[in-house]
Amino acid sequence: MTLLRENQKGPRPATSIWAERDATDFDINKMHVFLEGSEEGAAQILKEMQEVERDPILKTDETYYDMTKAEHREVTARKIGQLAKYIEQDGNLESFERKMNLMSIVDPQLTTRVGIHLKLFLACINGTGTDAQFNYWAHERGALFIRDVYGCFGMTEMAHGSNVAALETTATYRKETKDIVINTPHVGATKWWIGGAAHSANHCSVYARLIVDGKDYGVKTFVVPLRDREHELLPGVAIGDIGAKMGRDGIDNGWIQFTNVVIPKEYMLSKYTYIDEDDTVVDPPLAQLSYGALLGGRVSMVTDSFRTSERFITIALRYAVGRRQFASKGKAEENQIINYPLHQKRLFPLLATTYAMSIGSYKIETEFAQTLKQLDGAVRAQDLKEMSDAINRLKNVFCFSACLKSTCTWFTAQLIDECRQACGGHGYSSYSGFGKAYNDWVVQCTWEGDNNILATNAGRIIIQTLQKFQAKGKKPSGDLSFLGKADHVKGNKPLTLDFKKPSSLVDVFEAVVIRLSVGSIEKLAQNGNDWDLIAPERVLISKLNAALFMLTHWLIKLEATPEDGNIKKHLYTLFAIYGLSQIDLFAGAFLAEGVIDQASLKAVQAHLMDLFKEIRPHIIGLTDAFKFSDFFINSGLGFYNGDVYTNYFGIVKKQNDNSKSKAPYSKEFEAVLRRDTLEVRQNFGKSAKTLKKLSE
Amino acid sequence: MTLLRENQKGPRPATSIWAERDATDFDINKMHVFLEGSEEGAAQILKEMQEVERDPILKTDETYYDMTKAEHREVTARKIGQLAKYIEQDGNLESFERKMNLMSIVDPQLTTRVGIHLKLFLACINGTGTDAQFNYWAHERGALFIRDVYGCFGMTEMAHGSNVAALETTATYRKETKDIVINTPHVGATKWWIGGAAHSANHCSVYARLIVDGKDYGVKTFVVPLRDREHELLPGVAIGDIGAKMGRDGIDNGWIQFTNVVIPKEYMLSKYTYIDEDDTVVDPPLAQLSYGALLGGRVSMVTDSFRTSERFITIALRYAVGRRQFASKGKAEENQIINYPLHQKRLFPLLATTYAMSIGSYKIETEFAQTLKQLDGAVRAQDLKEMSDAINRLKNVFCFSACLKSTCTWFTAQLIDECRQACGGHGYSSYSGFGKAYNDWVVQCTWEGDNNILATNAGRIIIQTLQKFQAKGKKPSGDLSFLGKADHVKGNKPLTLDFKKPSSLVDVFEAVVIRLSVGSIEKLAQNGNDWDLIAPERVLISKLNAALFMLTHWLIKLEATPEDGNIKKHLYTLFAIYGLSQIDLFAGAFLAEGVIDQASLKAVQAHLMDLFKEIRPHIIGLTDAFKFSDFFINSGLGFYNGDVYTNYFGIVKKQNDNSKSKAPYSKEFEAVLRRDTLEVRQNFGKSAKTLKKLSE
Repeated sequence: MTLLRENQKGPRPATSIWAERDATDFDINKMHVFLEGSEEGAAQILKEMQEVERDPILKTDETYYDMTKAEHREVTARKIGQLAKYIEQDGNLESFERKMNLMSIVDPQLTTRVGIHLKLFLACINGTGTDAQFNYWAHERGALFIRDVYGCFGMTEMAHGSNVAALETTATYRKETKDIVINTPHVGATKWWIGGAAHSANHCSVYARLIVDGKDYGVKTFVVPLRDREHELLPGVAIGDIGAKMGRDGIDNGWIQFTNVVIPKEYMLSKYTYIDEDDTVVDPPLAQLSYGALLGGRVSMVTDSFRTSERFITIALRYAVGRRQFASKGKAEENQIINYPLHQKRLFPLLATTYAMSIGSYKIETEFAQTLKQLDGAVRAQDLKEMSDAINRLKNVFCFSACLKSTCTWFTAQLIDECRQACGGHGYSSYSGFGKAYNDWVVQCTWEGDNNILATNAGRIIIQTLQKFQAKGKKPSGDLSFLGKADHVKGNKPLTLDFKKPSSLVDVFEAVVIRLSVGSIEKLAQNGNDWDLIAPERVLISKLNAALFMLTHWLIKLEATPEDGNIKKHLYTLFAIYGLSQIDLFAGAFLAEGVIDQASLKAVQAHLMDLFKEIRPHIIGLTDAFKFSDFFINSGLGFYNGDVYTNYFGIVKKQNDNSKSKAPYSKEFEAVLRRDTLEVRQNFGKSAKTLKKLSE
Repeated sequence: MTLLRENQKGPRPATSIWAERDATDFDINKMHVFLEGSEEGAAQILKEMQEVERDPILKTDETYYDMTKAEHREVTARKIGQLAKYIEQDGNLESFERKMNLMSIVDPQLTTRVGIHLKLFLACINGTGTDAQFNYWAHERGALFIRDVYGCFGMTEMAHGSNVAALETTATYRKETKDIVINTPHVGATKWWIGGAAHSANHCSVYARLIVDGKDYGVKTFVVPLRDREHELLPGVAIGDIGAKMGRDGIDNGWIQFTNVVIPKEYMLSKYTYIDEDDTVVDPPLAQLSYGALLGGRVSMVTDSFRTSERFITIALRYAVGRRQFASKGKAEENQIINYPLHQKRLFPLLATTYAMSIGSYKIETEFAQTLKQLDGAVRAQDLKEMSDAINRLKNVFCFSACLKSTCTWFTAQLIDECRQACGGHGYSSYSGFGKAYNDWVVQCTWEGDNNILATNAGRIIIQTLQKFQAKGKKPSGDLSFLGKADHVKGNKPLTLDFKKPSSLVDVFEAVVIRLSVGSIEKLAQNGNDWDLIAPERVLISKLNAALFMLTHWLIKLEATPEDGNIKKHLYTLFAIYGLSQIDLFAGAFLAEGVIDQASLKAVQAHLMDLFKEIRPHIIGLTDAFKFSDFFINSGLGFYNGDVYTNYFGIVKKQNDNSKSKAPYSKEFEAVLRRDTLEVRQNFGKSAKTLKKLSE
């Protein structure tokens, strides 16, 4: 039976992946350093990775994919307890934040639950409370270490999410008793989606309208206790579980209704607005800064986008190297699916964009940290000039974090989805990791600033900056200074795209953003300055501006990187793949604005296919460079050894014991199969014989 | 306290939706008839809807969103039992199929489980078995009524999905005993994803390589019993549960390994290929038809796309009418979000595409049914000429079902996702329906022909048809006959898009498909006829061809529809919105091929905004016209009464009793909050005092 034995030669995907590794021509350690921004950064990340992946309580493996909502919640709470101890031990939040970023890759529901407490609740107290207030809640009470106080973030209401200024919960000041009454006036004002509220949080930073003497001072922030030390709800506080969600089962989102809950006046967060001893509301114009709490979240979502994309593009590319389907003419062995140009076109731009997001993430994180530091120093020193400078810079961060948060979170959703589809049917198995990750991910496109709202905001800022430059000669600054070139590139003349000159890629993106903005300004002039009518253009401008930001800083960084370990040529190739595939994606805009012509577009598409061929031999190296251990991959399809079928089958068998072949409901189903025919079940009540009898 | 009372006026979304209904200016019943193809069709659908929605066992409500995998499986099995009785009662499969299409809207996992049995397992027997074989399994044994025999479809293997011809399971004929041995040679050949195999199916239609005398005759089909009458696995049959999936928890997908399982020779399905009494394999060239089993599935997925899109666009539009956010300048009340042009641009093209898919679905269904009938008659009559005609027609169905299945299932995934995002945070609640629906849906893009494979296949057929016309003068027929205009529209000259002339929309789509195909033929000539290198173009051509198909038949149908009930003007508006938004979406291709010029594209975009304004007052009527009761909506955000917040809050409270405020895991978490400081927990082992002591 030669034939049978020959057939018994199964697929050997692991040999394929190792052959790729052997052919890698660059130093993946150097590449890792480039991705992590610096040698120190890379070393830190590797250290934190090890701490996280070896921790027996933080463990996240295939069992994760079979947990019920109740199990997810319990395990998540236990992990929070463990993370709390790391804050105490690490002693610095920077190190802890890196751990959070890493845990977000494999267990985002966990980090959200901690993030709501630290980066929304506490950040709100830090951002809008006095030093004394922050010191009391964070240090004296212990919130900083998740001790005693565990907070939730009471902003969103059932009927108001994006329009924060229109929130309807009231905080009415009573002069007589010098206290404040928190109230939910109607169902629409019910605090909604409040992460941690259902079962874990005992305090809430509540956004509510301050009302004094019948006058509405707008939305301010207050610390409101929800539960006592025995974790029992306080009177007047009604809380319920929001229940099942698309993803992030581990988070106990809740709704809260306040019925005349009294808090001391001192629980109002008073860095900017406060009620003085004469019961007068002091409400300085800088109060706008109080919404800054969300900015940090947006910035970190760019990092989340980068990290999550690293994980899923790795899985899809490893699978694509191991999987074979259809043989080319004359070949005995089937072809690796990664060798098909269509598969390359689907995945390589995603890989390149992941690299782009490494640039974008580090750049916006650094800029945000520096700006906050400047602002904090200025506020402490009461230096108005410096404060105004910092606020301008913060506006720049606001614009670019909005562009990048919306563009990168949308992109990552698309990446997870495309990578899943690229793994065919197996991508639909929970053990591939894609399903839960997608479900967990997509809320990033909605929360902490809906992507469409953020993108239109960013687009508006860009257009307004150009308007001010054109009308009043106000020179654009920071990352928008390229708008100063408007006079040179407006119009309809195509630019030359020189594939040998990387900076020409940046030029065409600058041109397309400028021309779209110029067009929008013209439309505004024609439509009576109705910004809503140009919202689609604003979204488009935001997306292209995000690409421009990443291309610009990528190139700056690349030019400053010394040649070492043969990484630069690949980084230039990826840079080109990213830029050109973005042109291909937004070809309609590039052609309509005449930034490139038809022939150039076809050249772009043809050149992309060449670049795919160029990068093809190195894609395993380029994903190995992320340095993700199997802990961070957690996918039967994507482990390092590349032995796809064995890994995947092993997990399926481990998670689903097949020693019993009948389902618990089997009896009932078997009875259906064994049921009598309809005639018998009707006891022949409709048989010809019966009917005849009945008509006699 | 005037102010408080004023604030207590909550949102009143229901009044908004009723105001829209009052303003609807057309007859929604007539519109329903148009959508369902005919008066009879509409009446039938309404009848079936009522039968389904009143059935206490088929009931699918908000409890659906809180079920575990185990609960889903049990409930699904019970529903199968109920559906089985409807087959007996309805007495015809046509009526039953309508019920299945309807149940697919709210519970697709159920209809998949029934569909695998009826439309894959039995269709495989019908398509590749003799009449006697079909009669035995379907009627005598009772499979047609889900009695005695419940089948699964054993095609996909772990290492082979798309490449069916390379499947590795073997079926070795033994002359001595006149029987066949089914064997799984290695892990890669394990049957995988087999729906129903894990616990319910007792038979399987197995795709395996027929081997006789050491010669491999390629993949044929066999009925293989898996379980005995007591539902116990037969020896040699190893089955396991595939476990957790992204969606469709109610389906017990399994894996199967056969170890020398012997079946009678008569269990081989022998309509085309058979082993005669002399042990000779008779294998006629028409055996290609045996893969036809999947075609029916593809066609019905176009209908699923239409129905599922009806449901979700209804939810998003009802929500968008009820939800208000941000007030326009000078207005006291906030604006309905549907009034924002960006929101219109996000949703109205989706509504128009849903209407387009009604056209596409009815057209391809009818064509498929007629073709099968023709083929069946020809085979029975052994009429070779008629057979060849029918096969040509089947190829046409193959091409267009591939185009439409891939385009429409991709589109529907995108629609569910965009509609969810358009409902903001609330869209992320499971009770909105989006989450489970998306997870259940997306596998449609992968199974029964991966979308990318199908689209490249369709693109190839289109290009080849044009090649044959250009090179050999073979006139294109059927729905591809437009390719005959190639000589007139090739080149680079822009066409005139006349918004007043609906047929000019069809013209530009014909032109873009033709020019892309001409370009592809040129590329093939240059690249040594490597079809893989033009796979991206083939996918693009397939998508545009699907749009062309729907536009063409929409217009034909519209022109044949008499003016009645004022529906035609809206149908023309939706037709234009569909066509123009597709141009906007594929602007890169239209401009690159010079089908329209830059000015036309800007005119298209501007005209779309005008059309949105035109259709805006009628969107509630246009979705009410789908005639979906709340049973089919099953979403807290989209019920008919429009009372969004009350409905949604009611479901959340019903599904999540809040009389207990502590989680089951509360004690452990409370202990974390109440833990001592690090110093105390270390028993001061690292305090300055201790350390001093240790260094003395």
